[in-house]
Amino acid sequence: MSKTLELAKRLIAAPSVTPATGAVFDELEAMLIPLGFAVHRFRRGEGEEGSDEAPVENLFAIRMGPEGSSHFAFAGHLDVVPPGEGWASDPFEPTVRGELLHGRGAVDMKSAIAAMVTAVEDVPREAGTISFIITGDEEGPALHGTRALIDYMTAEGAIPDLCLVGEPTSFHRLGDMMKIGRRGSVNIWLTVEGTQGHVAYPHLADNPIPKLVAMLAELDALMLDTGTDWFQPSNLEITDIEVGNRAHNVIPAQAKARISIRFNDLHSGASLSERVVAIAEKHGGTALPIISGEPFLTEPGAFSALVAGAIEAETGSAPEQSTTGGTSDARFLRAVCPVIEFGLCNATMHKRDEAVAIPDLDALARIYARVAKGALALDMKQGA
Amino acid sequence: MSKTLELAKRLIAAPSVTPATGAVFDELEAMLIPLGFAVHRFRRGEGEEGSDEAPVENLFAIRMGPEGSSHFAFAGHLDVVPPGEGWASDPFEPTVRGELLHGRGAVDMKSAIAAMVTAVEDVPREAGTISFIITGDEEGPALHGTRALIDYMTAEGAIPDLCLVGEPTSFHRLGDMMKIGRRGSVNIWLTVEGTQGHVAYPHLADNPIPKLVAMLAELDALMLDTGTDWFQPSNLEITDIEVGNRAHNVIPAQAKARISIRFNDLHSGASLSERVVAIAEKHGGTALPIISGEPFLTEPGAFSALVAGAIEAETGSAPEQSTTGGTSDARFLRAVCPVIEFGLCNATMHKRDEAVAIPDLDALARIYARVAKGALALDMKQGA
Ligand SMILES: [Zn+2]
Ligand SMILES: [Zn+2]
Repeated sequence: MSKTLELAKRLIAAPSVTPATGAVFDELEAMLIPLGFAVHRFRRGEGEEGSDEAPVENLFAIRMGPEGSSHFAFAGHLDVVPPGEGWASDPFEPTVRGELLHGRGAVDMKSAIAAMVTAVEDVPREAGTISFIITGDEEGPALHGTRALIDYMTAEGAIPDLCLVGEPTSFHRLGDMMKIGRRGSVNIWLTVEGTQGHVAYPHLADNPIPKLVAMLAELDALMLDTGTDWFQPSNLEITDIEVGNRAHNVIPAQAKARISIRFNDLHSGASLSERVVAIAEKHGGTALPIISGEPFLTEPGAFSALVAGAIEAETGSAPEQSTTGGTSDARFLRAVCPVIEFGLCNATMHKRDEAVAIPDLDALARIYARVAKGALALDMKQGA
Repeated sequence: MSKTLELAKRLIAAPSVTPATGAVFDELEAMLIPLGFAVHRFRRGEGEEGSDEAPVENLFAIRMGPEGSSHFAFAGHLDVVPPGEGWASDPFEPTVRGELLHGRGAVDMKSAIAAMVTAVEDVPREAGTISFIITGDEEGPALHGTRALIDYMTAEGAIPDLCLVGEPTSFHRLGDMMKIGRRGSVNIWLTVEGTQGHVAYPHLADNPIPKLVAMLAELDALMLDTGTDWFQPSNLEITDIEVGNRAHNVIPAQAKARISIRFNDLHSGASLSERVVAIAEKHGGTALPIISGEPFLTEPGAFSALVAGAIEAETGSAPEQSTTGGTSDARFLRAVCPVIEFGLCNATMHKRDEAVAIPDLDALARIYARVAKGALALDMKQGA
């Protein structure tokens, strides 16, 4: 059995539905100590189970290279989304059927963390400093996860020069896609207040719905941009409308809607919020934005070429360098150093019978080893 | 104590939340028998309590005039809307405080039926045929109420020449408004189906909300008409929108809305339904119309002049001849003869502490007596 397969099974066998603490971190710590890593674990959050403030665990592990050497980090998460019902085998009992390893976290992303560990075995200590930035709160509110790890690293003066996040970015086959950026995300709640009344006497009422409809029509017609060299066009979706008026003869007093904008680096959460607030107010309403993440882009250069080259060397073809999809913890890490995401095939992530193709495990470990060695050898002064 | 006040108290004291049966009809029957009326009562509906098919009672009473004489009908309902909480006195215990008689049905419309009874005492049998068309299902679904009474009258060959419905049409003071027509009403349910998906991958989804918003914007912008000599412009209100999508990152699969149109006699429920269906389909949706009532108009003429004159003779000023407000059972009665509505002040109808000004009771009885006598004397061949 391959080393990565064995490590992946150990991690999957430690249930860690978000927010994760305890056993799954014990497993990872036990893998890293023999490789010479100093491991620091800490918990954050003192709320009740199920609340946004429920305790989460984080792990920062570092193996120092020679004085003045580069510092490369692997980042990821050990928490998983709830398994749901109907699995063919216990989601927390790693199960091999044919060429597939089944289990919650098999692709998102315990197997990738296993591959990172195997990869490091292949990187000599003299090559430079390597660290693991691992949270138990990526699938949840992400309040006390990677953000807290960045605070810790900043306080310790242990900021990496380059970082690879092991999210499952591959699509049809391992290595067909890596992410050099992600769009930002903002959800905005829209409200129009009116005056309730009877439909037979509309002049005594003030129907908020036509104002909301006009507001939404204007928002829906917005062309935010036409995309950039690296990003697709920003996109606005109306995700909900809620009036909740069951009485056929009544003009309601309030109408609400929610929109979700995924945006490229031509915008910021604040600039879009300001724009939507202005449109909402023009139509007599109000807007409450909640920014989930700003966009980031690690512009194609030495670092992306290194990752793409490592992938091509092991898989035979170069990956698409994409900025599509949802957000990840790279939205936080981008603040401290250039970050790229690459990992397993995402077809079964968050789904029933999540599974990874076993040959991909060793291939991913080899790619990660190439990336780590290459990143430590890069002269960062040339720019990443 | 005035006769009308006494009769109104007796009717209010018989609880009759819609659909009404039994005791309240016993009271009315006991008032009409001594006046020489033949009373026919019948029940319709065999469903469970609370269903649209729950049993309702109807009463048709007739006092025949001389052979070939005119036939004038009073129409109304003995059911009342539920009283709700917080009354200053028991809603089914008629209570006089100062100049007001309190109780559920005090204005809508047990006191009006009491005034009709008093009025008839004043009309000699030789003047013509008088009837009472009284249902226990006006405030409810109205499936087995006045419609069933019309079927009965038709079968009996007892169709009136003119009819006065005693709904509370007065506004600020008794006699300031009568109704010579009512707008029609149609509610239309709108649905757009889409394909659910993730907001990060909108090209894999089909968001139904923008289609619904465009549909509603077009509907809201419709100018149905600019009104007629007797009707205000038809009006369309969007009364509800429902998506019900709680997930911020999800594009929903369905979006629904409801509109309510109150329309004048330039339209029919069918013509408007057809128009809305076409707009809904143009935007990729569907429309399900439910017509509550067609508009009616008793064009100003001898009958309306008679009612207006009776009001002016008793109150000192002529009423506004209006077509505003909601629907009533006149929407059914219009099919058999010209119909006008006139009754008490509607300020407290359907509300807590519903009350009628006691002096209005005798005044209304006198107006009704003038109308009944005048209507029986009208030569209907001249047109009503
Ligand atoms: Zn993940
Ligand atoms: Zn009524």
